Amino acid sequence: MVDSCQTCETCKNDREQYCPSTAFTYGSLDRDGSRTYGGYSKTIVLTEKFVLSIPESLDLAAAAPLLCAGITTYSPLRRWGVRPGWKVGVVGLGGLGHMALKLAKAMGANVTLFSRSQEKDEDAKRLGADHFLISSDPEQMEAVVGQFDLIIDTVPYNHDVNPYVTALVPEGSVVLVGYFGPLEPTVNSAPLVLRSQNLAGSLIGGIKETQEMLDFCGQHGIASDIEVINAQDLHYAYERVRKGDVKYRFVIDITTL
Amino acid sequence: MVDSCQTCETCKNDREQYCPSTAFTYGSLDRDGSRTYGGYSKTIVLTEKFVLSIPESLDLAAAAPLLCAGITTYSPLRRWGVRPGWKVGVVGLGGLGHMALKLAKAMGANVTLFSRSQEKDEDAKRLGADHFLISSDPEQMEAVVGQFDLIIDTVPYNHDVNPYVTALVPEGSVVLVGYFGPLEPTVNSAPLVLRSQNLAGSLIGGIKETQEMLDFCGQHGIASDIEVINAQDLHYAYERVRKGDVKYRFVIDITTL
Repeated sequence: MVDSCQTCETCKNDREQYCPSTAFTYGSLDRDGSRTYGGYSKTIVLTEKFVLSIPESLDLAAAAPLLCAGITTYSPLRRWGVRPGWKVGVVGLGGLGHMALKLAKAMGANVTLFSRSQEKDEDAKRLGADHFLISSDPEQMEAVVGQFDLIIDTVPYNHDVNPYVTALVPEGSVVLVGYFGPLEPTVNSAPLVLRSQNLAGSLIGGIKETQEMLDFCGQHGIASDIEVINAQDLHYAYERVRKGDVKYRFVIDITTL
Repeated sequence: MVDSCQTCETCKNDREQYCPSTAFTYGSLDRDGSRTYGGYSKTIVLTEKFVLSIPESLDLAAAAPLLCAGITTYSPLRRWGVRPGWKVGVVGLGGLGHMALKLAKAMGANVTLFSRSQEKDEDAKRLGADHFLISSDPEQMEAVVGQFDLIIDTVPYNHDVNPYVTALVPEGSVVLVGYFGPLEPTVNSAPLVLRSQNLAGSLIGGIKETQEMLDFCGQHGIASDIEVINAQDLHYAYERVRKGDVKYRFVIDITTL
């Protein structure tokens, strides 16, 4: 985000991401009528309040994705109060998932990655997972019914969320951060009601919380796993993103523009 | 509830309603192998911890439904922290809905009833609603988009929950207490994610919270609106319940058994 109205209720409560006038870094109409171009810009003009301080201990390139994948996963982990002893599940190991693993682990949780690919097991454990589960294996899913305090679901396309609800403890929550659209197969309200559970969503975080996340990452030495590319390799990188072949974020070196 | 294991995590956390061994008042297998018959019993034997104290200021017959409709609506109102200034919506005006109106109002909220029947307007306002909305009127629903901190949805059959999610403020919650089953039309995750909202459920409450609810009702002079019937009028009353013709709970006088 580069600007918001600063006067509405959500802005006053440090939740600029919901302000109807927020100018996002990319693709928004800015206050002066220009269009924002995010990382493709040569210069960015933003309201002072939206400037963030990157801890000196972090590599600048590896810190860049924290402003999206970092805050998107940090915010729900904090909002639901993850603490030592909690069992946290992370669904999907991509840009969001790999940050969720690192952050949940740093908050002291016992962390499990749910994935469809056995080949992600090793990386998941390197990134902080204590356990690894194949989400398409009914036996493995059956074995964890009623276990998780919180599940962060990072999958960016439609999928069945019901097995994740079933994997929650009473009063537990599944938080969707990757997919916006109709949920098919349909959500069954029975476990939600009978065990007082939540199916929730979460959108990035406000500026204050984003700074808090950066400071937390600085203290814990957490940044994103990245591949730095030159601007001219963008199309090649885009094809690799489409194939899911990136561990775990591309960062464009804009000095090569 | 008349008993639970008292040793599992949920029992230790005063959440006996999720204990796998809970004996419910009606239709459960009790510890001695007998079947529980709830209000149709001549005697009930229960674990001491499950005995509740009805405040002396409340009429006993009108207090009876508090043990179900009262705690079912009180628990989510408390769990989500309803306080003066909050906008609370209640969907449906039946046994659960009429308690939700009274309790939310007593907690200081600004309360709106959503109903399909214009004829419920007067009763809703008598029971505590500040506003009344026809939920099947797209114009009235459009006018309240983004307004509610919390919506308690008491409708006991399948219905479209998406318009209630849309009516929430960012980080607001819809809590289902009446319907257990597949939600059709399907839930759209876009508002959940883009405005960090919750679709949750809630199941009665633990014994400790049930006593707290009874004490709250005693302090605020809140009980259920009831019709007392004789045991022999049960079939007649059941037909009226099926037609939705009860304001708002039948209570059987068991001295007529």
